[in-house]
Amino acid sequence: MIPQDTIVALATPSGAGAIAVIRLSGKNAVSIASQVFQSVSGKDLNKQKTHTLHLGHIVEDAKVFDQVLVSIFKGPNSYTGENVVEISCHGSTFIQQQIIQLLLRKGAKMAQAGEFTLRAFLNGKLDLSQAEAVADLIASDNEASHRLAMQQMRGGFSNEITKLREELLNFASLIELELDFSEEDVEFADRTAFHELVNRIEFVLKRLIDSFAVGNVIKNGIPVAIIGEPNVGKSTLLNALLNEERAIVSDIAGTTRDTIEDELVINGIGFRFIDTAGIRETEDHVESIGIKKTFEKIEQAQVLILLLDAKELKVSGLKFKVEIEKIKNQFPLKPFIVVINKVDLLSNEEINAIKKELNNLNLTQSKAEKNNVKLETISAKFNIGIDELKNTLLSFVNTGALRNNETIVTNTRHYDSLLKALEEIEKVKWGLNENISSDLLAIDIRSALHYFGEITGEVTNDELLGNIFASFCVGK
Amino acid sequence: MIPQDTIVALATPSGAGAIAVIRLSGKNAVSIASQVFQSVSGKDLNKQKTHTLHLGHIVEDAKVFDQVLVSIFKGPNSYTGENVVEISCHGSTFIQQQIIQLLLRKGAKMAQAGEFTLRAFLNGKLDLSQAEAVADLIASDNEASHRLAMQQMRGGFSNEITKLREELLNFASLIELELDFSEEDVEFADRTAFHELVNRIEFVLKRLIDSFAVGNVIKNGIPVAIIGEPNVGKSTLLNALLNEERAIVSDIAGTTRDTIEDELVINGIGFRFIDTAGIRETEDHVESIGIKKTFEKIEQAQVLILLLDAKELKVSGLKFKVEIEKIKNQFPLKPFIVVINKVDLLSNEEINAIKKELNNLNLTQSKAEKNNVKLETISAKFNIGIDELKNTLLSFVNTGALRNNETIVTNTRHYDSLLKALEEIEKVKWGLNENISSDLLAIDIRSALHYFGEITGEVTNDELLGNIFASFCVGK
Repeated sequence: MIPQDTIVALATPSGAGAIAVIRLSGKNAVSIASQVFQSVSGKDLNKQKTHTLHLGHIVEDAKVFDQVLVSIFKGPNSYTGENVVEISCHGSTFIQQQIIQLLLRKGAKMAQAGEFTLRAFLNGKLDLSQAEAVADLIASDNEASHRLAMQQMRGGFSNEITKLREELLNFASLIELELDFSEEDVEFADRTAFHELVNRIEFVLKRLIDSFAVGNVIKNGIPVAIIGEPNVGKSTLLNALLNEERAIVSDIAGTTRDTIEDELVINGIGFRFIDTAGIRETEDHVESIGIKKTFEKIEQAQVLILLLDAKELKVSGLKFKVEIEKIKNQFPLKPFIVVINKVDLLSNEEINAIKKELNNLNLTQSKAEKNNVKLETISAKFNIGIDELKNTLLSFVNTGALRNNETIVTNTRHYDSLLKALEEIEKVKWGLNENISSDLLAIDIRSALHYFGEITGEVTNDELLGNIFASFCVGK
Repeated sequence: MIPQDTIVALATPSGAGAIAVIRLSGKNAVSIASQVFQSVSGKDLNKQKTHTLHLGHIVEDAKVFDQVLVSIFKGPNSYTGENVVEISCHGSTFIQQQIIQLLLRKGAKMAQAGEFTLRAFLNGKLDLSQAEAVADLIASDNEASHRLAMQQMRGGFSNEITKLREELLNFASLIELELDFSEEDVEFADRTAFHELVNRIEFVLKRLIDSFAVGNVIKNGIPVAIIGEPNVGKSTLLNALLNEERAIVSDIAGTTRDTIEDELVINGIGFRFIDTAGIRETEDHVESIGIKKTFEKIEQAQVLILLLDAKELKVSGLKFKVEIEKIKNQFPLKPFIVVINKVDLLSNEEINAIKKELNNLNLTQSKAEKNNVKLETISAKFNIGIDELKNTLLSFVNTGALRNNETIVTNTRHYDSLLKALEEIEKVKWGLNENISSDLLAIDIRSALHYFGEITGEVTNDELLGNIFASFCVGK
């Protein structure tokens, strides 16, 4: 299954930069590179040690392509486990293309998306969940998703799964042994200890499955629906929230500002703000399509923010009351923040009166609900109350697991395998309780082992690998 | 003048990719990197040899930022001549930012545009014209501009200048010596040999100055104005011309197709096609604004293509005749290609008749002009005559110098200095002929030496350096 050919691709982002890195991996990586590389000191690349750097020129016949630095990694001490050569050239797209084409002419073949990491997996340098974490790591754009990918890449998740799988495998082999001696009615596997193990596995699986909700949120950001009329200060609020966070990014050139317009990272957790149509005009047309859409968006959201204009509240009173109650009735469990903006325009007494009136709404009837509804007063323009609002947003995020360095599942494929593994473990548990025969028990255990193995890649097939690595970028 | 601080920047293009490279340069590059790097084998970075590679993690306190590869280059054996550390990390923009910020916290400072190359220049690793070639090399997007930049970076141009400068310096010192003995009326400098040198310098300077026209064309592409009505097949022609060249690029992912819509590389020479308004309707409004603009564009162009529709020529005859003659009268020296498109719709007899009629136009009256006017018949749709047209375009480019590996000036700054140096050399030559006194001669020689030195950077100032390196990308 391990390929014999040598692959090549650009490893750095496409486009022009100071330098670019072209990566070769395969049995002939060093010899292919040596055909086109002329060391400044006349050294032969083939005779160089692993983990060394060499200055020279890429040449073909008399033509000099570029002055480059060549890094040599000899298998198995390389990323892919094969011989790897990295060529640092000047970052002109023309030069990148020319060198890659030259290497193709010398016998390398163009790498597929993710093929370097696939080879690392096939050569046992990474398990499958670690390989998947490489893609997550590259895609990570905030503290929390980066930390999860890093943890997974370093084996946190697969270590836990592998350990459980080994213990289960142990028992499985004993159970299978019983099958060989089935006529003698012996029990090699200690049923009590096995019961205890199955309970433990069940517990861990449930915890991991539960963690997916958090993991998904961390990976993709927490959807927050902002309900509010156009002039209520939504953009000003977003800007006020964004400004502080943007400062970190602004040191680095080339980060586009427009793409994160509606995205925000607070204390390393990503939030995605969803714009909704005004809810006010719906008083008369509750069933209208516009409102349906707003409610659909609210459904997708994990947190709701209703932004109100303090000035208008003062003038026209709590005419949002009906809508607020409607939303709360429809989504009783969704965290809900009523945010009164433009408080700089009101006196303290006026603010307090509004607060009191809002608090009197029966939004917080039960104790359980109370935790889900918050009231904040801000002035987005003058940056008043913004930090408090951020803290409130964060308070709705279950980051307990994150803080405790617990394993969190972020990958849908893992989630599916865990769900299936749990199903099989439940069957095993039932079988143990019902004292079913070893042969039937063995079938369910094998099934559970299969799903464990799918996660870490002990069990795999070409199609699965194809799907996983196709989502990688070329060069990784 | 040589800075003591350690600078850091992203060296690879911005954006996400498989890997990114962060570069540190300065006295403390290795010690700063060692503060945040934990080698997998427990090695201390500070004790590692130059040109070695080390696998490990970037960590701060207990927090792991990424698994990275660190390259160590100890000054003076590095790009900048200082200690250089390159960190290959995973190519997430978040990770790039985090690591750069960590290094800033540990005492590095953000590099200015071109600061790495500036330091290489200040440390004598490159002369100024070589440093400028680095920027040209990164910007090069075709064979010819790449070859010129490569040649210049390897010292081709500055070697020639430096050699002349040294010879002139030699004579200058002898002339200056004469000043000390002015009362004795001796001549240390052999006036005949000096005369010969000045002539040689004049010859080389003139050749270099002349080469700028070619160099500029190679660097920026040759502007070609296509004159023709919308339906005459301009786009089809461009596509027919482009298709073959695009194939080279299509291997590599991430190259945008739309930006080169009007640019074309033929045999490594770039052509820029300039769209012009139809010339036909101008028969009655010769002075109209639209036509003025067309003529302005024609003025900018170095080659003119008049694209005609064979079918229409057959129907309506040579009604373009007036305009063709107008253009030829106004721009008698501009290469001019009359291209008849859609010849697939005509019989051979019809084509020959049109050709004959066109040849009878008094476009090619004089012998000198004849070389400048060509007639081509093509079918863009069926790819007939396209290669011939390409060859005709190429025939107008003076690539002789390029083929002969002669030094070509591409940089406006160098061009300006060469012009000024020539002016001074002419003065010296005049002075020698007029037998003026050594002290006056010495002033002009010093002036000429100054301009030579400006090119290679022996003579420089902060403002000049600032201007040159500001056009670099950060990280180079």
